[in-house]
Amino acid sequence: MPSNLSDNIPDIVIGRLPIYLRALNRLAQDGHEVTSSHELGQILGISSAQIRKDLSHFGGFGKQGTGYQIVFLEEKLRQVLKVNREWEVALVGAGDLGTALAHYGGFAERGFKISCVFDNAKEKIGKPLNGFTVQALDELETTIKARAIKMAMIAVPAKAAQEVADKLIAVGVRAILNYAPINLNVPPEVRVQYIDPVIHMQRMTFYLP
Amino acid sequence: MPSNLSDNIPDIVIGRLPIYLRALNRLAQDGHEVTSSHELGQILGISSAQIRKDLSHFGGFGKQGTGYQIVFLEEKLRQVLKVNREWEVALVGAGDLGTALAHYGGFAERGFKISCVFDNAKEKIGKPLNGFTVQALDELETTIKARAIKMAMIAVPAKAAQEVADKLIAVGVRAILNYAPINLNVPPEVRVQYIDPVIHMQRMTFYLP
Repeated sequence: MPSNLSDNIPDIVIGRLPIYLRALNRLAQDGHEVTSSHELGQILGISSAQIRKDLSHFGGFGKQGTGYQIVFLEEKLRQVLKVNREWEVALVGAGDLGTALAHYGGFAERGFKISCVFDNAKEKIGKPLNGFTVQALDELETTIKARAIKMAMIAVPAKAAQEVADKLIAVGVRAILNYAPINLNVPPEVRVQYIDPVIHMQRMTFYLP
Repeated sequence: MPSNLSDNIPDIVIGRLPIYLRALNRLAQDGHEVTSSHELGQILGISSAQIRKDLSHFGGFGKQGTGYQIVFLEEKLRQVLKVNREWEVALVGAGDLGTALAHYGGFAERGFKISCVFDNAKEKIGKPLNGFTVQALDELETTIKARAIKMAMIAVPAKAAQEVADKLIAVGVRAILNYAPINLNVPPEVRVQYIDPVIHMQRMTFYLP
């Protein structure tokens, strides 16, 4: 595998790999051992040619005609995506959404573990939340630095999100999943992904009669 | 504006319009009246040429050198995206995530209103949830048909999501925001958008050292 992989692979290809991995997980859960770019394509609504091309960036994981060994391809994709380990994630915001995220059971098996939760509301600080104790925002810097956490989820109101992002970045966070409905300004070494349900809904209404 | 707009505009352009609209909303809230493709580009991390090109699909909303009237451009984008009206949305799943969605205050001002909530858990059915009464899944067909609802959010476990989607589609739903971590099989006339935080996180870990 080339050493400077991220320089060579288009980001849009990287963006599809987690989707392939999720489909493979499901096929494995359903008892399948082998799949094909054709089968994956049908599940995902992506052409089999695209899937073969995407996977060929990483050396190709299957032989023409014999398909992909699911367990092997899963392991390779986990390696490429670096989720063959567990990433600690800081969660900022313990409102309705933060609470739902803290309770979500689907992170661990896919490479992530929320390991601390912060909020600035006095009535929340110190309270238990699914095994965590909600910490004051004041403790964010010390905690994240001490644990060398590189990833965070922001689930605070839009008006507070940029300030929270700045604090996170200042203590070493390099990947942010932002649920606040606002674009964040971050330096080039920081990755941000956005989750805003309205953006997705507005993208669909365009097509509705 | 051409009549068969959706045949001509690449889906990737449509996908950026809600992001432009959100940025314009924020500029307006902050008291701005005029903006430019340059300013929007800086806020969003998109090139100003791309923004001008995207907007030119719809006839162009600004003049070279004078910038865009924010209120005017907002209104135009709302028209194009068909969110200059309120869409009723059915929510299926009243667990942690469904509850957070039912409480979320950011839908109404951006074109959407959750208008019914369904779950199959006996202890949830009939309970109030932010002004709604959680209904049994058995009532889904009748309620959605009666109200001619075209949009839905699925916030149920992965193993139940396809069955729920099939039911929704059978009674006329044509746009689904799916929070279950599974790809849905839907007929071509139905749009699906996916929200799965792990997909976004795995896309970022690739780039982390």
